[in-house]
Amino acid sequence: MFVEDEWNVIEDGFDASRHVIAESVFSIGNGHMGQRANFEEAYSGETMQGNYIGGVFFPDKTRVGWWKNGYPDYFAKVINAPAWIGLHTSVNGNLLDLASVKIHSFRRTLNMKEGTLSKTCVVELPDGTLLRIESMRFVSMAAVEIGTISYAITAENKDCSLSVLSFIEAHVLNQDSNYDECFWESISQKNEQGISVSVDQTKQNPFGVPQFTVATAICNEISVSATKKQYHKQLQLGETLDFKLKKGETAVITKYAAQVSTMNYSAQELPKIAVERVKEAEKTGFKKLYADHKKVWAAKWKLSDIVIKGDVKAQQGIRFNIFHLNQTYTGDDSRLNIGPKGFTGEKYGGVTYWDTEAFCFPFYLSTSPESVSRNLLLYRYKQLPQAIKNAGKLGFTGGAALYPMVTMTGDECHNEWEITFEEIHRNGAIAHAIYDYVTYTGDRAYLVDYGLEVLIGISRFWAQRVILSPIKRKYMILGVTGPNEYENNVSNNWYTNYFASWCLRYTMETISWIKRVANEKYVELAAKISFEEREILRWSDIVNNMYLPTDEKYGIILQNDGYLDKEPITVADLPADQRPINQHWSWDRILRSPFIKQADVVQGLYFFENELNEETIQRNFEFYEARCVHESSLSPCIHSVVASKIGDEAKAYELYLRTARLDLDDYNKEAKEGLHITSMSGSWLAIVKGFAGMRVAQNDISFNPYIPSGWKSYSFSITYRNATLTVKVSKSKVELCVSNGYIPNLQVYGQTYLLKKDEHITIQTKKK
Amino acid sequence: MFVEDEWNVIEDGFDASRHVIAESVFSIGNGHMGQRANFEEAYSGETMQGNYIGGVFFPDKTRVGWWKNGYPDYFAKVINAPAWIGLHTSVNGNLLDLASVKIHSFRRTLNMKEGTLSKTCVVELPDGTLLRIESMRFVSMAAVEIGTISYAITAENKDCSLSVLSFIEAHVLNQDSNYDECFWESISQKNEQGISVSVDQTKQNPFGVPQFTVATAICNEISVSATKKQYHKQLQLGETLDFKLKKGETAVITKYAAQVSTMNYSAQELPKIAVERVKEAEKTGFKKLYADHKKVWAAKWKLSDIVIKGDVKAQQGIRFNIFHLNQTYTGDDSRLNIGPKGFTGEKYGGVTYWDTEAFCFPFYLSTSPESVSRNLLLYRYKQLPQAIKNAGKLGFTGGAALYPMVTMTGDECHNEWEITFEEIHRNGAIAHAIYDYVTYTGDRAYLVDYGLEVLIGISRFWAQRVILSPIKRKYMILGVTGPNEYENNVSNNWYTNYFASWCLRYTMETISWIKRVANEKYVELAAKISFEEREILRWSDIVNNMYLPTDEKYGIILQNDGYLDKEPITVADLPADQRPINQHWSWDRILRSPFIKQADVVQGLYFFENELNEETIQRNFEFYEARCVHESSLSPCIHSVVASKIGDEAKAYELYLRTARLDLDDYNKEAKEGLHITSMSGSWLAIVKGFAGMRVAQNDISFNPYIPSGWKSYSFSITYRNATLTVKVSKSKVELCVSNGYIPNLQVYGQTYLLKKDEHITIQTKKK
Repeated sequence: MFVEDEWNVIEDGFDASRHVIAESVFSIGNGHMGQRANFEEAYSGETMQGNYIGGVFFPDKTRVGWWKNGYPDYFAKVINAPAWIGLHTSVNGNLLDLASVKIHSFRRTLNMKEGTLSKTCVVELPDGTLLRIESMRFVSMAAVEIGTISYAITAENKDCSLSVLSFIEAHVLNQDSNYDECFWESISQKNEQGISVSVDQTKQNPFGVPQFTVATAICNEISVSATKKQYHKQLQLGETLDFKLKKGETAVITKYAAQVSTMNYSAQELPKIAVERVKEAEKTGFKKLYADHKKVWAAKWKLSDIVIKGDVKAQQGIRFNIFHLNQTYTGDDSRLNIGPKGFTGEKYGGVTYWDTEAFCFPFYLSTSPESVSRNLLLYRYKQLPQAIKNAGKLGFTGGAALYPMVTMTGDECHNEWEITFEEIHRNGAIAHAIYDYVTYTGDRAYLVDYGLEVLIGISRFWAQRVILSPIKRKYMILGVTGPNEYENNVSNNWYTNYFASWCLRYTMETISWIKRVANEKYVELAAKISFEEREILRWSDIVNNMYLPTDEKYGIILQNDGYLDKEPITVADLPADQRPINQHWSWDRILRSPFIKQADVVQGLYFFENELNEETIQRNFEFYEARCVHESSLSPCIHSVVASKIGDEAKAYELYLRTARLDLDDYNKEAKEGLHITSMSGSWLAIVKGFAGMRVAQNDISFNPYIPSGWKSYSFSITYRNATLTVKVSKSKVELCVSNGYIPNLQVYGQTYLLKKDEHITIQTKKK
Repeated sequence: MFVEDEWNVIEDGFDASRHVIAESVFSIGNGHMGQRANFEEAYSGETMQGNYIGGVFFPDKTRVGWWKNGYPDYFAKVINAPAWIGLHTSVNGNLLDLASVKIHSFRRTLNMKEGTLSKTCVVELPDGTLLRIESMRFVSMAAVEIGTISYAITAENKDCSLSVLSFIEAHVLNQDSNYDECFWESISQKNEQGISVSVDQTKQNPFGVPQFTVATAICNEISVSATKKQYHKQLQLGETLDFKLKKGETAVITKYAAQVSTMNYSAQELPKIAVERVKEAEKTGFKKLYADHKKVWAAKWKLSDIVIKGDVKAQQGIRFNIFHLNQTYTGDDSRLNIGPKGFTGEKYGGVTYWDTEAFCFPFYLSTSPESVSRNLLLYRYKQLPQAIKNAGKLGFTGGAALYPMVTMTGDECHNEWEITFEEIHRNGAIAHAIYDYVTYTGDRAYLVDYGLEVLIGISRFWAQRVILSPIKRKYMILGVTGPNEYENNVSNNWYTNYFASWCLRYTMETISWIKRVANEKYVELAAKISFEEREILRWSDIVNNMYLPTDEKYGIILQNDGYLDKEPITVADLPADQRPINQHWSWDRILRSPFIKQADVVQGLYFFENELNEETIQRNFEFYEARCVHESSLSPCIHSVVASKIGDEAKAYELYLRTARLDLDDYNKEAKEGLHITSMSGSWLAIVKGFAGMRVAQNDISFNPYIPSGWKSYSFSITYRNATLTVKVSKSKVELCVSNGYIPNLQVYGQTYLLKKDEHITIQTKKK
């Protein structure tokens, strides 16, 4: 439905029935704020208004039918903030409503290279006036509190009188689960010297969560002579620009907006700062703002672009994913994280899941400066006290930490017992991101300063959470939900048990290492958190005696106790009209079926491939892939990486495709709710770790590339220990070059190279 | 806290902090409507107003944090109906508010023998006026739409002017989970010829549930000369009675109320019928109404009383339980059932649970005419189509029936997946009640006319719900929750598997029998429900190959897969400050602990003792009792019965005590929410089936009595196949006599007797 293009997403012709989807797809953001592609114009059709500010949320009372002990009091949700984009035009006294005028032409473009949203349309008003509108807007990557719009109106066929209302809308609602409640109260609204400022505060809450205040300031320039009048009506605030156009004439309105919040300033100084910011923006001017913004995007693309030749759809898909990942999280504020919908929708409350560490982390690690992934780690480090408190609510003591399933500030915000209390494998992914970071960057100092404290908290949790089975005399973990949420409250989920054991091992290794290299730091930390050596003895015992279920008959890892008692059928036996099963079957039926929602054993094969032999990986992948319905957006990418690993190229490509254009092609019919931001990293993983086979070990980086049969070539860059490595894979050759720094231990197809700055090597591409 | 008395519950002296508890405890009802012990007088203190009409409910939108496929759209809840009791007195112009006057004496009495609530108090008003109030009220067991109050006021120390407002309050709210919403809208209010009528309708709902309309009519008599004036203010409607009393004089006001609903009449005729009923009541007069009411209660006590000598508290406790059971359900309307709180509170929505069949049924079966327990069965028979629809929502076909966990009209109204979808053992209890009824009454015709159709629906469900394990080659039931709700989503819950198998066996036996005795009826039914013989073949295979987990090491039945992997500790290891665990532990901790909420294997020992040997019963009882925290009010009674069976007299008595005075002594600190009506039957079971060891088989009834050491004697009557048998057990002897009919096969301590009408046998009491 969108025009295929390498750098743009283009909607040619307006389809009101798909407008809410387009509003998600064409969203723009800068890591600090984000705006859905709502029209500037009046629009009485279906829409989901959304302007979100990173970190600004409302704690809504947890509502459940039946309360369970331990549930959190509130659910954090991202809220729609006062809107700054409104430009409502009246023509000869009649309001231009895009839902009711005749649209002669319409083209909406998301320019992913430059991070802008443009719209060109010609509309006919009831009185026959034809207007051409050409708008372009962005939220600045360079000045992150600024959004700006260039809005050109041309009188196409006759003279006309126009009145454009440029305003802030302070009465905004959410659509998801707030029962039409407004979360804002107006503090002040002021119109002075052409600048309008609205100050709004989130409502009081009984949970001790601080209220947020946001100040929004706007001002306008216009290229023709116009009368400006202040406008203030209820919670709308701005000015009207009245002017006349002769046939063929164009007026360009430039709207500058600044939005600042108590995330960064005191409430008192907000209005003043908002005014200063918008004045600065106006002074800088649109052209310069645009140039600065493009410059930041150019730098981002240089680090993170993937170029695919021979497949425009694939090219558009991967860039769409990279674009959204880059505009969702920029990594300069360790209080922010990556919500499942980013700034493109309300669903899942904009809060942080294990998605960040398990899926998104490698993307930022390889495509951004080290500080970005480090900030993702620091986010969790700063929330360690809350993770310890959270574990305490579940009965764990002595500094054991359980990171929340869902959070904004570190407090648990989820309320399904089988997930909130039992999907504890998330602790593993959080520890693994530390391992990933340290291995990739070599920044072992992070372990000393922050990492070990988190690892010990997590290990203490596992050490209390296991139980020595009186029957099997092995350590077991009872009552969990694995990544496969189509089984709940199971025992001995292999992935969870393995991860618990891995965490303990990694923590013990880290302790040994720190004792050797920085014993005084270790002693200091141990004193701070009352860590005792005897804890390590218990950890060793657990690692040596962890129960890791397998089945001899099938020669496989067992997903969890009892899995093989289930009906012995595979996805191939499932009629098409029953899929997706989560829309056709009641929950109990799903639970007792053998069908798997997402990577569980396979997720483990992905994380722990170094510790498992090839045959194990192959046999288990085949067994579980046959039973996986991939009804999580996070599932196919991981299977794709593992399929590449075992040389199943067709399967790897099939699963890659399910991730890469998930939202562009709206496979799941839910793009209108917002985009699947966290799973977007999956297509990057499927290419870089899958097709190109990138792996990083303690002191080397390796590739084992192949090329999907339909592609001519693909290339990407990664940042690795201050070197920028570019990898290009075509049918015949693999080219690698380092544009700065050097790489001492580069392996390709198992052979080692030393790659100096600007050096370039070419190797023949292997067939899988 | 209440005065110990054999026939009364007495509160001597007023304690405002316990008033809401007293409102529950002193509730009165007649099986069709019920009234909490709210004051007639104005009362500005804490109160929970409650007047409930059997079958009148509101379908409230299901609210859950995370929706699961298959959840019901609405939750049925009993609603507080317009109140008829209000008598607000003003003395010399000042309103008498029981929360603010000085109370000189206060005595509230629930006369359980006669089913009345009385209150006597002397209060002093701010102006020094002393008034004596003596009120008595009941909702008539004889004329079930009538409630009446006799209200006497005496001027104790001086002359005074009084004004009594007798009114209907139509603006009533619920307290539990309705967020202060009113579920009623006023249709009309009319004052005519001394009769006030308020017609009120439940609000519209989007679930297709019919709205209920209720008409309430009142009128008043007064023993002294008084001026009557109509009163109508907002949603209050009635009349004021103005009169003067000289010192020492008494005025008696008699208030008659009728409440009728669209449960029984069309909405149009309601106001007329309400007026007719209240006029009839007034004409009949208080004295005659009272006499008729007492007569019904006398008959009920004759059938159901248990007399305990030597222990007044035990006597009061058991009568309190029997009293409430009798006033909650009278069995003359098969659309009604027994809500967990009866007419004493709002919690659990007043809906039907498996409690009815598993716990209450035997009480009504033994203490009421056959029609009463038959109506309980017909309730489920009539809801068979909804049970089939309910199973259909979960993917079952071909007439398989899953009765709802919670219901008002047959539709499922629960919304916790682990219960709604998985606590399927309830189907077993519903089948077992049919078995109980037929065995006890000998009314096999019920099987032909209704029972078999229900049994086939249930058996069809089990036959689809089992799965042949590819590993063990046994039929398993995966993903269930047993009666022990402290394990969720487990596999092979022994109780559920056993019950499934039992249902199939009983259905097959019933089919064989009906084929022999009434084949044409069988053929007719088979045609009606498309029943095929090959279904029976599958059932046989399932029965023959059902997986019934056991553990050889401990020599016990295994509660469910994985139970013995849990921590090997017992309740004795649980510190007192951690109990009840459901108030101290998070849900996941409870789930993975070995602690059991309520009888599960033990519930099975209770139901299926005939099929298990004594040693099995003893060993399993001891094992599981040691692990059971009895945090369900339904738990101790069943354990008590089984403890009696195995001769553990001390344990049986200890567990009996936990049931018998649960609400009178407010053990669980929740009596203010209403009484535990369904578990009240447990104390009856503990005496009759436990201490007296009553058992009923195909054609005989047997006793195996002993007497708790602290008691002098206990006696009870049961109705058995039109004979009334009285059993009296003292330290030395067991006396049995039949007051009508005869009992051909009576066994006591294993010896058989033929007991003719008015015959009396005496046997020496055995020591256990």
